[in-house]
Amino acid sequence: MKTYLFTPGPVPVADDTLLEMAKPIIHHRTEEFESIFAVVRKGLKSVFQTTEEVFVLAASGTGAMEGAVANTLSSGDKALVVNGGKFGERWGKICRAYGVEVEEIMVEWGEAVEPSLIKEKLDGDPSISAVLMQASETSTAVKHPTKEIAEITRDRDDVVLIVDGITAVGVFPVMFDEWGIDVLVGGSQKAFMLPPGLSFAAMSQKAWKFYERSNLPKFYLDFAAYKKNAEKNTTPYTPAVTLVRGLASVLEKFSAEGIENVYMRSALLALAAREGLSAMGLELYAKKSPSPAVTAACSPPDIDAKRIISALRDKFGMTVAGGQDQAKGKIFRISHMGYIDRADIIAVISAVESVLLEIGHRFEFGAGMKRASEVFANDGI
Amino acid sequence: MKTYLFTPGPVPVADDTLLEMAKPIIHHRTEEFESIFAVVRKGLKSVFQTTEEVFVLAASGTGAMEGAVANTLSSGDKALVVNGGKFGERWGKICRAYGVEVEEIMVEWGEAVEPSLIKEKLDGDPSISAVLMQASETSTAVKHPTKEIAEITRDRDDVVLIVDGITAVGVFPVMFDEWGIDVLVGGSQKAFMLPPGLSFAAMSQKAWKFYERSNLPKFYLDFAAYKKNAEKNTTPYTPAVTLVRGLASVLEKFSAEGIENVYMRSALLALAAREGLSAMGLELYAKKSPSPAVTAACSPPDIDAKRIISALRDKFGMTVAGGQDQAKGKIFRISHMGYIDRADIIAVISAVESVLLEIGHRFEFGAGMKRASEVFANDGI
Repeated sequence: MKTYLFTPGPVPVADDTLLEMAKPIIHHRTEEFESIFAVVRKGLKSVFQTTEEVFVLAASGTGAMEGAVANTLSSGDKALVVNGGKFGERWGKICRAYGVEVEEIMVEWGEAVEPSLIKEKLDGDPSISAVLMQASETSTAVKHPTKEIAEITRDRDDVVLIVDGITAVGVFPVMFDEWGIDVLVGGSQKAFMLPPGLSFAAMSQKAWKFYERSNLPKFYLDFAAYKKNAEKNTTPYTPAVTLVRGLASVLEKFSAEGIENVYMRSALLALAAREGLSAMGLELYAKKSPSPAVTAACSPPDIDAKRIISALRDKFGMTVAGGQDQAKGKIFRISHMGYIDRADIIAVISAVESVLLEIGHRFEFGAGMKRASEVFANDGI
Repeated sequence: MKTYLFTPGPVPVADDTLLEMAKPIIHHRTEEFESIFAVVRKGLKSVFQTTEEVFVLAASGTGAMEGAVANTLSSGDKALVVNGGKFGERWGKICRAYGVEVEEIMVEWGEAVEPSLIKEKLDGDPSISAVLMQASETSTAVKHPTKEIAEITRDRDDVVLIVDGITAVGVFPVMFDEWGIDVLVGGSQKAFMLPPGLSFAAMSQKAWKFYERSNLPKFYLDFAAYKKNAEKNTTPYTPAVTLVRGLASVLEKFSAEGIENVYMRSALLALAAREGLSAMGLELYAKKSPSPAVTAACSPPDIDAKRIISALRDKFGMTVAGGQDQAKGKIFRISHMGYIDRADIIAVISAVESVLLEIGHRFEFGAGMKRASEVFANDGI
C-alpha cells in the first residue's frame, strides 16, 4: 500500500533529500564538509530570522530544549512556564530536573496563552528570570503569541524569553532578532523536511549574558562550544553528517523558494485542512489560535478518535496523530509540515470523509474536499 | 575520483545500508517502528555482551559519555580517569563540568595503562567512586586492558567502572556482563558501519544503585527514561528513525555473521595493516597494545605526516586521519572499522607505499603489500 505520513514529526522527506543523505559518507574535518556546513549556517540564520549563529546539535528537539535551559539559567532561578500542552509541561520537567523553580501558567488545552498574564506575573515577581513557552504547541495544535510575549520581555534585562519553535521555525514567521527572542529551538523532522536526529538553537546577546552567570552543568549541550566551532564551519563533536548534508540541500531549496513563500505555502495548507475539516462538521481543537504546523480536529460526539485514526491507517495507508493525555481518543491531528503539498491535503481530507461516512457521522459528503479545494483554487482568499 | 574513507569515525557505510536509511520515513509510535526497535534491542545486547538493556540515544558518542557520568555520579564525588589521549582527557573535562573531582592517571601517548596503578590508587583512596577509561583510545590507537581493570573494580561495591567503548564495542570483545563493566558506551559511526548520530549505553545493576543516589541533573540523557521505554520497544524522545532502521539492518548482518566472526574479521584487518606498515619500515605509534579499531603509524623521521595524508587524499582519494595535539604531524591513522574489507586494506597499504616512495623514504617497495597480503592468505597465522 502506498503510505502517507501526516504526523507532526517525523514528516515525509523528499526522495531527492533521501538520496542526498544516501551519498557516500564523508569525514567531518574536511573542506568538503565545511563547505556543506557553510550552506547550513547561512540557511539556518535565514530561517531563524537572525544574524546570530544557529547551533546544530546531533540530538532530538528535547536535547536542544534542555540546552536552552542549561545554558542560560542557574539552580534556584525561578522560571515562568507557559503550560498549555505536553511540550509546555516538558519545559517544567526540564527546569525542575536542573533545580530551577517553576511557576506555571496553566492554559486550557486548545487555548493560547493571554500575554497580559505574563506581564502581570513578571511585574508582580521580580525574581522570575525566564519565560519559557512554545511558539506552536504540537499537542494541542495551538499557536501561542510569541511576538506579543517578546514585547513584554525584550526590555527587561533580567528576564530571558526561551521559545520552543520546534513546530514553528520554518512553518510561520518567528522573528528572532526583530521580536527580541532570547533562545529559540528548532528540530529537523518538522518544517525542515528531514528525518529526526538534528535540533537547532540560537541565543541572543542577552542570553549570552545569562550564559556567563549560569551555573548549570553542561558539556555536550554547551552552546559556547557550538558557537566557537560554527565560526569555523564545523561542530565541536562528530556531527550527524548524513542529516547535515540533507539539511544543506533543504536549506538551498528554501533559499530558492524564498522564506516568505515557505511561510505562505504552510499557511495555505493549514487553512485548507482547517476549512476542509470544519466543512465536514468537525470542531477544531484549537479554538482561536490554530498553528499552521498541525491541525487538530475533535472526533464527532461518541466516536473514539482512535477509530478514525485506525481506519485512515488500515484503509488509506495514512498515518495521522492521535491526542495525548487528556486529548487521547478525543482528537486526531493532521500535520502539514514536511514534504507535503496540496494534493496530499486533498487526499487526507477525502480519506477522512470516507471514514466519517462509514462510521455514521452525519454531514454533507464531499463538502470537505470541495471547501479545501476551493481554498487552494483561490490561494487562500 | 573514487573515494575511500579510512578515518576512525565516520566510517564507510555499505550501499545497502545507505538505501535502507533512504526508505520512506515512518512514525516512531507505530508497530512497524517497534518491530524494528525490537531487532535493535536484541542485536545491541549481543554486541554489548549483556542481558541488560542497551539505550539508543540520538546523540554523538560524547553525549553518551556525558550520560554515563550524569547517571552514576554526584557533585563532589572523586573519579579516577585514565588519560592516555584525547578521549581520556574528555572524560576529565566532562567530570569537571559536573563538579566531579578528577584524579588523572596520565599515560604516555601510545602506551596502555598499567592496571596495577589503578589498584594502587583505589586501595590508597577509598573516596574514589569511579574509574573512567577508554577500551580503545582512538587518538593513540591503543587498546587499554579493560578486562584486567574490571577485575579490580568488580568486587568493590563503592566503585563503578565506566568504559568508553566507542571504538571498541563491535570491534573486539568487551564483555560487559562477564567482566563486570558498569557503564559501557558505543557509537554508530564505528564498528556499527553507520553514519554518526546515534550512541549507545548499557548500565550494570551496580551502576543503577549509583543512579539512585546520583544528584547530577539530567533529562535528555536520563538513562532511566531510556530503560523504561526500551522495554516497550521505543525511546523516550523522538528517535533518529532513519539511523535506527540502518542499525537494525547492520545488527541483522552481525547476527548472521556471528559476533565472534565480526571480531575475527576486525582483528585480521588490523593485523594486516600493522604488519604491512611495519614492513615498510614504519614504526607503530601504539607500542605494545595496538587497538584493532585503528592503526597509527609514525611518519618517517623528518617527514611531516601531513604530507602523507595530503598525498593519499589528492592522488588516491583516500581519507586517513592525522594525529591530534602532541601527535599532530607525527602520525597518520588508518581505521579498519566500518564497511572495510581485505581489498581496502591492500589498497591503502599500496597507496602508502607509493607515497613513501615519492617522498624518498627508503624501504623495499612492495614489502608492505606483500606482507599484508600474506597475513590475509594465512588468515592471520
